Amino acid sequence: MEYSARNQLKGKITSVELGAVMANIKIEVTEPNVITAVITKESAERLGLKEGDDVAAIIKSTEVIVGK
Amino acid sequence: MEYSARNQLKGKITSVELGAVMANIKIEVTEPNVITAVITKESAERLGLKEGDDVAAIIKSTEVIVGK
Amino acid sequence: MEYSARNQLKGKITSVELGAVMANIKIEVTEPNVITAVITKESAERLGLKEGDDVAAIIKSTEVIVGK
Amino acid sequence: MEYSARNQLKGKITSVELGAVMANIKIEVTEPNVITAVITKESAERLGLKEGDDVAAIIKSTEVIVGK
Amino acid sequence: MEYSARNQLKGKITSVELGAVMANIKIEVTEPNVITAVITKESAERLGLKEGDDVAAIIKSTEVIVGK
Amino acid sequence: MEYSARNQLKGKITSVELGAVMANIKIEVTEPNVITAVITKESAERLGLKEGDDVAAIIKSTEVIVGK
Repeated sequence: MEYSARNQLKGKITSVELGAVMANIKIEVTEPNVITAVITKESAERLGLKEGDDVAAIIKSTEVIVGK
Repeated sequence: MEYSARNQLKGKITSVELGAVMANIKIEVTEPNVITAVITKESAERLGLKEGDDVAAIIKSTEVIVGK
Repeated sequence: MEYSARNQLKGKITSVELGAVMANIKIEVTEPNVITAVITKESAERLGLKEGDDVAAIIKSTEVIVGK
Repeated sequence: MEYSARNQLKGKITSVELGAVMANIKIEVTEPNVITAVITKESAERLGLKEGDDVAAIIKSTEVIVGK
Repeated sequence: MEYSARNQLKGKITSVELGAVMANIKIEVTEPNVITAVITKESAERLGLKEGDDVAAIIKSTEVIVGK
Repeated sequence: MEYSARNQLKGKITSVELGAVMANIKIEVTEPNVITAVITKESAERLGLKEGDDVAAIIKSTEVIVGK
């Protein structure tokens, strides 16, 4: 399956922090850029996310703000 | 002013396409990664966005999907 | 690749309407439910979306509002 | 009051899980489709959400990603 | 029906601008604050939005960024 | 730096509630309007958010739903 959300940044997970409902995932996309993703704890567990995993950060273009 | 949205990727605009209401902005954040941002045409005009501008793509962490 | 966004509703496209920058896609997920997705025109064209296509509507759980 | 967000899927709550700040709500919209909504704990409590409640999952069209 | 999205700012529409797919709606919520909402053209037409209408701007709390 | 997200409502924080991963921030923007923002706990701590702080609630226009 291919997705309409074209912004896909590849990186490596540097930390996973689980709360009761949400999880905070840090993804180093290109040194020194780190993307923080907040997803549900159950998705983090279902995907088995852990430090060192190769993942992609996917972002719909309508969610991006531009600063100049 | 400092912002709670910590995901800020610096890059250069490679194209600006204006529609009637929305605008599509391409930002090369790190070769070969390009981020597409869709913002209102009026914001694109207010910021005077044009090819070659140094900008930042700002994304709230709750908007990021993780793919593995 | 598997995704953290678990809300995936399968359906069939019933209409594609292209604007200058954005595109409005109607997806019949289960009769009589229709989901409207607004994506960039370029993503609609890249995926070659057209009436009758089998697709999935994918929604991150933080984007869902509950009404009771 | 009528809303601009037209995507409204009716269903029944199958689970409510409360964290410190957020709550994870499962809504069976049409068998076997389940929508996960993450809302604040205070909204879940204010609406008195519980298993078996008839609710609607409301989603703005700009939040929907299309997979094909 | 009551909604989990509790941020509801009441105001008056000061302009409606229609594109091919999207519409830009300006809502004066409290002088001199103006909220811009971008919704689909079809929703703007379905609700019959026009200058002077009393409306509410509804925003899910996960969408709000804090600047200090 | 100037931002494409033009919706900026100024207000004062009336409460900060920290969870394990997320934080719930109440901002009184104009009496009696209160905006709830859910951000990561780490952003709340990084900005040192506390009751009485003067802040801005920033919202991208594509995130606003209109009710009439």
